[in-house]
Amino acid sequence: MSGDQGEKANKQTSGGEQVVTPWDVQADEGVDYDKLIVQFGSSKIDDDLVKRMERVTGQKVHHWLRKEIFFSHRDLGEMLDLYEAGKPFYLYTGRGPSSGSLHFGHLVPFVFTKWLQDAFNAPLVIQLTDDEKFLWKDLTLEEANMLAYENAKDIIAVGFDPKKTFIFSDVDYIGHMYPNILGIQKKVTLNQVRGIFGMNDSANIGQFSFPAIQAAPSFSSSFPIPLRGDDDIPCLIPCAIDQDPYFRMTRDVAPKLGFRKPALIHSKFFPALQGAQTKMSASDATSSIYLTDTAEQIRHKIKHYAVSGGGDTAEEQAANGANLEKDIPYQWLRFFLDDDAKLDQVAEEYGAGRMMTQEVKDMLGDVLIGIVAKFQADRAKVSDDVVKEFMSVRPLEF
Amino acid sequence: MSGDQGEKANKQTSGGEQVVTPWDVQADEGVDYDKLIVQFGSSKIDDDLVKRMERVTGQKVHHWLRKEIFFSHRDLGEMLDLYEAGKPFYLYTGRGPSSGSLHFGHLVPFVFTKWLQDAFNAPLVIQLTDDEKFLWKDLTLEEANMLAYENAKDIIAVGFDPKKTFIFSDVDYIGHMYPNILGIQKKVTLNQVRGIFGMNDSANIGQFSFPAIQAAPSFSSSFPIPLRGDDDIPCLIPCAIDQDPYFRMTRDVAPKLGFRKPALIHSKFFPALQGAQTKMSASDATSSIYLTDTAEQIRHKIKHYAVSGGGDTAEEQAANGANLEKDIPYQWLRFFLDDDAKLDQVAEEYGAGRMMTQEVKDMLGDVLIGIVAKFQADRAKVSDDVVKEFMSVRPLEF
Repeated sequence: MSGDQGEKANKQTSGGEQVVTPWDVQADEGVDYDKLIVQFGSSKIDDDLVKRMERVTGQKVHHWLRKEIFFSHRDLGEMLDLYEAGKPFYLYTGRGPSSGSLHFGHLVPFVFTKWLQDAFNAPLVIQLTDDEKFLWKDLTLEEANMLAYENAKDIIAVGFDPKKTFIFSDVDYIGHMYPNILGIQKKVTLNQVRGIFGMNDSANIGQFSFPAIQAAPSFSSSFPIPLRGDDDIPCLIPCAIDQDPYFRMTRDVAPKLGFRKPALIHSKFFPALQGAQTKMSASDATSSIYLTDTAEQIRHKIKHYAVSGGGDTAEEQAANGANLEKDIPYQWLRFFLDDDAKLDQVAEEYGAGRMMTQEVKDMLGDVLIGIVAKFQADRAKVSDDVVKEFMSVRPLEF
Repeated sequence: MSGDQGEKANKQTSGGEQVVTPWDVQADEGVDYDKLIVQFGSSKIDDDLVKRMERVTGQKVHHWLRKEIFFSHRDLGEMLDLYEAGKPFYLYTGRGPSSGSLHFGHLVPFVFTKWLQDAFNAPLVIQLTDDEKFLWKDLTLEEANMLAYENAKDIIAVGFDPKKTFIFSDVDYIGHMYPNILGIQKKVTLNQVRGIFGMNDSANIGQFSFPAIQAAPSFSSSFPIPLRGDDDIPCLIPCAIDQDPYFRMTRDVAPKLGFRKPALIHSKFFPALQGAQTKMSASDATSSIYLTDTAEQIRHKIKHYAVSGGGDTAEEQAANGANLEKDIPYQWLRFFLDDDAKLDQVAEEYGAGRMMTQEVKDMLGDVLIGIVAKFQADRAKVSDDVVKEFMSVRPLEF
C-alpha cells in the first residue's frame, strides 16, 4: 500500500473535479468525502451501522467511528452478519515501506486495525509492499526490504496479537501468493488498470502489474497457513479511502476467480501540519510528527508549523473565535484525544474565542508526547526475534 | 518460452515484410533468415566461428551448426574466449508447457543444448514457463503446472546431466528470482514492451510484465545456488530465433543492473509437415509428429501429411527431380539424420529424380521411429524421484 494515512496531498485543481488515487489526491477545497462516496460507489457508515457494531461486539466502537474518521465502507454489514453467526473473517491491511520511521498519519490504519482485531477476535495479515516502493521510488530493493523489517517493528509496537497476526514482505513472501497473483493478472487488462489508476505508458511494467500483488492478500487462499481453520474465509480491509481503487479492482475480479469480494472500511485522510491542502511528505520533516521525534521537536513543530484556524491576534481570537475546520491542532486532537468531553469543551471554548491557539497547541503537544512516549517504550521491547515471530509463515492461533 | 521450435507458423502477409515475435511469424515465402539477422542485429555463425568451436572444444560441432540450422548468435565468441581461459559460463533454455507431450520440433533446442552442455561441461538451467502458458492460454494454473512436470520428464529423457542441470517451474520457483524480476521490471517501460512485442492494450497485465520473468534466468544471481562456484557467471542462451525479442530486451537492461549481457545462439524454425508456410499446431495432431506416436502413426503422418517437393507422378519426378527446399521429408532428414554422406546422397539422387518421394519418406520414417523408440525407452526410466532431483533447489556439481 502506498497510500498510508497522511501520505496524500490535496493539490489545487483547475476545475472543481476531485481526483483521488493511491498516488495523488487533487481537490480544490479539501476532499469532499460525501461526494467521494458517490464517486467511488461505496456506502456511508451511518449511525445505525455504528450502533449495530456496538451491539454485535458488546463494546463501544473506536472513537474514530463515532467521529466519522472511518466514514465509508463496502459490505461491512455482511461481516457483522458473519460475526453474529459465529463465522470468522480475517483482516488485511498494509504499508508501503518508503521511510524508516512512521509518523502520526501512518499510525491511523494500524491503531484502528488493532481495535478491529481485538473487538472481533480476528486474524490479521499485514502486507509490506517493499516491491511497490522499489518500483515507484528511488530506492534499492535491499533498502526497501530493510525498511519493511524496520517498519514491522513500529507496526508490532501498536500492540497486535502475535498469535493472530502475520506480517509479510512481498519480496520475501511472493512465492506463496503467486498463484493468486497470476489469477488476478489474467483477469485484468492493461486498459482496465489504466482506467482505474491513470498510469501513463512511460511507467514501468512492474507498476502496471503491481495492483494484482496488492489485491492477492484479499483472498484467504493467498495464505497457505490456516488463518482460522476454514479454507476460504472472507476478508475485511481497513484502509484510507485512496486505496479503494485497488480493491474496486479486486472486488471486480473476485467472482471471476470464484472468490468472495473483500469488504472494506475506509478512513479520511490525516492532515499535514501545514493543512489539508498541502502534502505531508516523507522528505519534508516539518510536514508531520514522527514517532521518533523528541518532546522538544514535537512542541517545536506544533508551534511553528501547525496551521491555526484561530484569530491572528488575541483580540481577533476573542472576538471571532477559531475556524475549527481549518485548525490543524484541533483536527489532530480529533484524531488523537480519546476524551469526547474534553474535545467537545475545546471545540466550544476555542470555537467561541474563549480559548487561545497556544492553549490548544499545548494540549495537542501533551497528547502526542504521551503517545510517543508509550510508543517508544513499546517499540524498544520489539526485538528481532519478535519480528521474526510475526513474519514467519506459521498457522495463526485461535 | 512460448516459441519452442515448431510452434511457429509462417503466415501469408500482404506486404513483403516479415514479422517474427515469440507469438507470431509472418513471412510470404518462408522466413528469410539472412534478412532476419540484419533486422534483429544479430551475427551470422560463419565457418570461422564453427571452426573455432571445434578447436576450442576439441570435437566436431553438432551437425546443426554445420548445416546452419543454428545460424545466428550474439557474443558467442566471448563465451569461447571465456571457455579457452578456463572460466565458466552457464546455459539457459526453456519451454512453455502448453501440451503434455513434445513433438520433434520441441526436441530441437533441447538436443542442441545437451550437446552444448557436454561439449563445454556447462551448468544448465531450464525454465518451464507455466505462468506464461496460464496467462496466454485457456489453461488452469494447476494444468499448466502439471504440464511443466510432465514436460520435465521429456526434457530429462534427452539426457541432461543431473549433477549440472536445474529445471524449474516459474510458479514454484518465482520467489527466488523475484529480486531480479523486479530489477528488470523497473528498467522497462510499457512503451518499450509494446514496441518489442507488439501486445495490444486489451492484453492482460501479467502479459505485459511477463518478459521480465523470461529475462531473469539470464542473470546468474537469479539462482541462489552455486552454479559453478563463481558469483556472477555469464550466460549463453540456445533458443529459436523468435525468442530473440525477450533477450534483446534483457541485453538492453543488463548493464543498467550491473549484469553481463547474456550471449545467444539462435536456431531456424523446424517446419510443420504441411510445409514451412503452415502452422505446426499443438491442437492439430496431423501437423507434427509426437514423441508418443507409434511407429504406425509416424509412417501414416509422413505418408499422408508431409508435403513433398517431388514430382506429382513417377514420370515427372524422374524428369525434373524434387524441389528439396519445399520437400518436408528431406528437410526433416536434414534435422534428424546425423549422417552427412547419406544425406548428401539423398539430396543428389532425390534432387536429380533418381529417387522417389516414397523412398525418402520411408527413410525419414526409419529415422524418426528409431529416435522415438530410444526416447520412449529413456523416458520410461525417468521416475518422479528423478524429476524431483532435477527440480530441487540445490548446488550444481562440477
